[in-house]
Amino acid sequence: MFIYLVLITIFTNIDCKNVLVLIADDAGFETKVYNNTVCKTPNLNKLAEKSVIFRNAFTSVSSCSPSRSVIMSGLPQHQNGMYGLHQGYHHFMSFDEVQSLPLILKNNNIHTGIVGKKHVGPSYVYPFDFAETEENHSILQVGRNITYMKHMVRKFFHHHNDSRPFFLYIGFHDPHRCGHTNPQYGAFCEKFGNGEPGMGTIPDWKPVKYDSDEVEVPYFVQDTPAARQDLAKQYTTISRLDQGIGLILEELKNAGHDKDTLILYSSDNGIPFINGRTNLYDSGMGEPFLVSSPYQTKRNGQVSDILVSHVDIVPTILDWFNIPYPSYKLNKKIVKPTGKSLLPVLNSEPHSGYETVFASHNLHEVTMYYPMRVIRNQQFKLIQNINYKMPFGIDQDFFISDSFQDLLNRTRSGIPTHWFKTLKEYYYRQYWELYDIKSDPKETKNLMNHLDSGYKNVFLSLKTKLLQWQNVTSDPWICAPWGVLEDAGSYKKNPQCFTADNYLNLHEEL
Amino acid sequence: MFIYLVLITIFTNIDCKNVLVLIADDAGFETKVYNNTVCKTPNLNKLAEKSVIFRNAFTSVSSCSPSRSVIMSGLPQHQNGMYGLHQGYHHFMSFDEVQSLPLILKNNNIHTGIVGKKHVGPSYVYPFDFAETEENHSILQVGRNITYMKHMVRKFFHHHNDSRPFFLYIGFHDPHRCGHTNPQYGAFCEKFGNGEPGMGTIPDWKPVKYDSDEVEVPYFVQDTPAARQDLAKQYTTISRLDQGIGLILEELKNAGHDKDTLILYSSDNGIPFINGRTNLYDSGMGEPFLVSSPYQTKRNGQVSDILVSHVDIVPTILDWFNIPYPSYKLNKKIVKPTGKSLLPVLNSEPHSGYETVFASHNLHEVTMYYPMRVIRNQQFKLIQNINYKMPFGIDQDFFISDSFQDLLNRTRSGIPTHWFKTLKEYYYRQYWELYDIKSDPKETKNLMNHLDSGYKNVFLSLKTKLLQWQNVTSDPWICAPWGVLEDAGSYKKNPQCFTADNYLNLHEEL
Repeated sequence: MFIYLVLITIFTNIDCKNVLVLIADDAGFETKVYNNTVCKTPNLNKLAEKSVIFRNAFTSVSSCSPSRSVIMSGLPQHQNGMYGLHQGYHHFMSFDEVQSLPLILKNNNIHTGIVGKKHVGPSYVYPFDFAETEENHSILQVGRNITYMKHMVRKFFHHHNDSRPFFLYIGFHDPHRCGHTNPQYGAFCEKFGNGEPGMGTIPDWKPVKYDSDEVEVPYFVQDTPAARQDLAKQYTTISRLDQGIGLILEELKNAGHDKDTLILYSSDNGIPFINGRTNLYDSGMGEPFLVSSPYQTKRNGQVSDILVSHVDIVPTILDWFNIPYPSYKLNKKIVKPTGKSLLPVLNSEPHSGYETVFASHNLHEVTMYYPMRVIRNQQFKLIQNINYKMPFGIDQDFFISDSFQDLLNRTRSGIPTHWFKTLKEYYYRQYWELYDIKSDPKETKNLMNHLDSGYKNVFLSLKTKLLQWQNVTSDPWICAPWGVLEDAGSYKKNPQCFTADNYLNLHEEL
Repeated sequence: MFIYLVLITIFTNIDCKNVLVLIADDAGFETKVYNNTVCKTPNLNKLAEKSVIFRNAFTSVSSCSPSRSVIMSGLPQHQNGMYGLHQGYHHFMSFDEVQSLPLILKNNNIHTGIVGKKHVGPSYVYPFDFAETEENHSILQVGRNITYMKHMVRKFFHHHNDSRPFFLYIGFHDPHRCGHTNPQYGAFCEKFGNGEPGMGTIPDWKPVKYDSDEVEVPYFVQDTPAARQDLAKQYTTISRLDQGIGLILEELKNAGHDKDTLILYSSDNGIPFINGRTNLYDSGMGEPFLVSSPYQTKRNGQVSDILVSHVDIVPTILDWFNIPYPSYKLNKKIVKPTGKSLLPVLNSEPHSGYETVFASHNLHEVTMYYPMRVIRNQQFKLIQNINYKMPFGIDQDFFISDSFQDLLNRTRSGIPTHWFKTLKEYYYRQYWELYDIKSDPKETKNLMNHLDSGYKNVFLSLKTKLLQWQNVTSDPWICAPWGVLEDAGSYKKNPQCFTADNYLNLHEEL
């Protein structure tokens, strides 16, 4: 045993294995990597050439802080406590006891750093040795000014003058909308730093402009001039993200770590368009995801179609560093992360073990209570909308966007929306939604209305698995909305859902 | 100015004015002080003889942590950030920037102490010089074992050997239910420490037992054997609370401070019975409230009928200590507490200035999202049920109580409930509820169904005042449920509610 430990230590030191995580903010598939032929992303394309490209990767929750808490903890938002946004009067936070990735790595003598958007807390749960974030900078500077970010990364490598491995997390703020907070820079801050009068200059950024006629409108967004203009602006902002990625990778190379660093690229949640962010339809849940290892290169540039989730990021990185997940309790229950390491996938496409992903959403803004629980496999998806009788919430950011206002105006005026749903359907959803993703990838036909056509067993089987996952991940909403979870006193070791529903038929309309 | 300050200082030192706050947990009006002739509370009766007895006192929110956060901050829960329970996976907290009462007093050289239930956080927002709470003790010991509490109070006075004034906060855990967490001690922990086998002994407690036939059943609880038995147990637990109050007041006297200490007694929220706790009907919102000043004695034993709220506690205590409320911002807005000092009321019943109280509730348990906003004056009450399309939540604690199970069983079996509502009505409420409290104190006739009978102007007037209060108290829910609050960027100085409701008729059934 002693010899084994020594060997591990030597191995780690010799290989000097590091990790670089690149997280975009609200990015989708606007890249050639995912077959978008218009939006130019040369740096992402280049990274993809030395990565495995996951085509079925999903966020665990389509909301910024909750998603980042999952990326950094490996635990669903309902398990780590970050039920909604972290900032301002939302002020959600992870539980004090959560052993996050930066904490585990710190405790294992890995040098940790973060540059850009952090958006999680409390700070002692997510500690970084080196932190240049919105907590000590303007988010525009540290998250969108790629020259500034480059210098911060350079500073990190300057500080990293020891033999320890490092973990560096880059949180781009692009291509997040900003018309809500900084309208002077445009809907997506696409003018910020572009050299025009009053916009300042980001020296390293060469803005790329797009004609709204040429953008590729995703199936879930209305194809109208207003939405197209919004997408064109988003594309311009993606050029900043892409060039930023190029700069960071250049810094990595200059620091001599391009050959010993695992690189992961993804985004926190769906794009900030209708049916995207805050939704758990595939349009809000699907994410770009690239994993590039300098030691496992034979699948470079290949696609993988297994189902992966952001909960897999922590196990992958711990596997890379050869660090076991610590043993501890959250709210008196032992924590067992449900994610799996993706390192084996870099060697060969697995035939089994990656068939199902789960997702859970509670709130985004604190006033947007809309808990959802989701199970998805290669063919089906089941969504539970816990607060379904109330309208789905629209966030502050998206509500005043040209794109959403266009949908509202068209709906009000009774002119064609050029959209695949009605707003009424969007606001009011059924309690359960069951889709055959294979034959209905746009999730338009709710099979709950066709249970007698043979889908009842599909529903019951998925529902059972969803419940099992809620149980394993200590979901406080496991009995919601009709039941009350009893998990203390007599029920401490045998938690139960009690309900008045069977007496009262509380959801009679189902 | 200099002379003025010196005079103030001398005045404060000479008088050595102190404050003792006694907060019961889920207590109601089970005392002779409020005309209950069965439940024996000699110590409360004695305290009332040297207090002004408020007959129209209300909690600002009928839920434990939120209510305590209001008592200790003077700000509604939606303003201080404690939107729900503090413990476990609920883990709500006040904003880091809140200047709470213990913090302000500490900063003004007042010696602060807390013994018993605290139930708020984070700890740096609610700091006490001396703290013996559930955070470092068993809540049963520090909140129900009155002998133990007595010793803790004695310890506080032992430490208080300087000339500074003190502020001592006692958080009794009685008469809170405990069948949910500690069923071995009975529904209300009425057996804990009563000397029976396995119950231990609380030396100072002489348990008082009640026959279920003799209890006074409040109008809002079903009059059945099961509910009566539950009430009898509650009464027994109140004997522990009452005797505890006697012990604490004895300690105060022994420490030589019975003649220079302002004493306040109240409870956090309504009793844990149907229509009580977590509700903002008067049965959940009305609180016992005694204020006893050694310097203003002429109204001792008198009742006051003005409308007062827990938000008045901080201004009263700051007035007593002659400390101004600090100037600071919360979420970028200057904080102006809406409460008023009650010290003038101890001299004479005011003719104006105390006509209206407000309340706001968001959640209790994190799964019980049911935001309500309330305005109440001497005649009318208006309640907004923001998540009204979903069933009202029942908490873990109450759900498994004999009293609630009795209601469920009766409803299921179709036998008379002996209750003034149906469970269906209780679970599903109207969006707005308007009551004429004077003619309908039980709040049974919703005047929203009779707006054409002249109540429309009453509704509109109350609604306008409610909205003004939400604005002044920076309520994030001010636009909920149909609108989106825009308060950043272009709307930073001029926040607006935007809605899709006018296009979509989202609440068509109204």
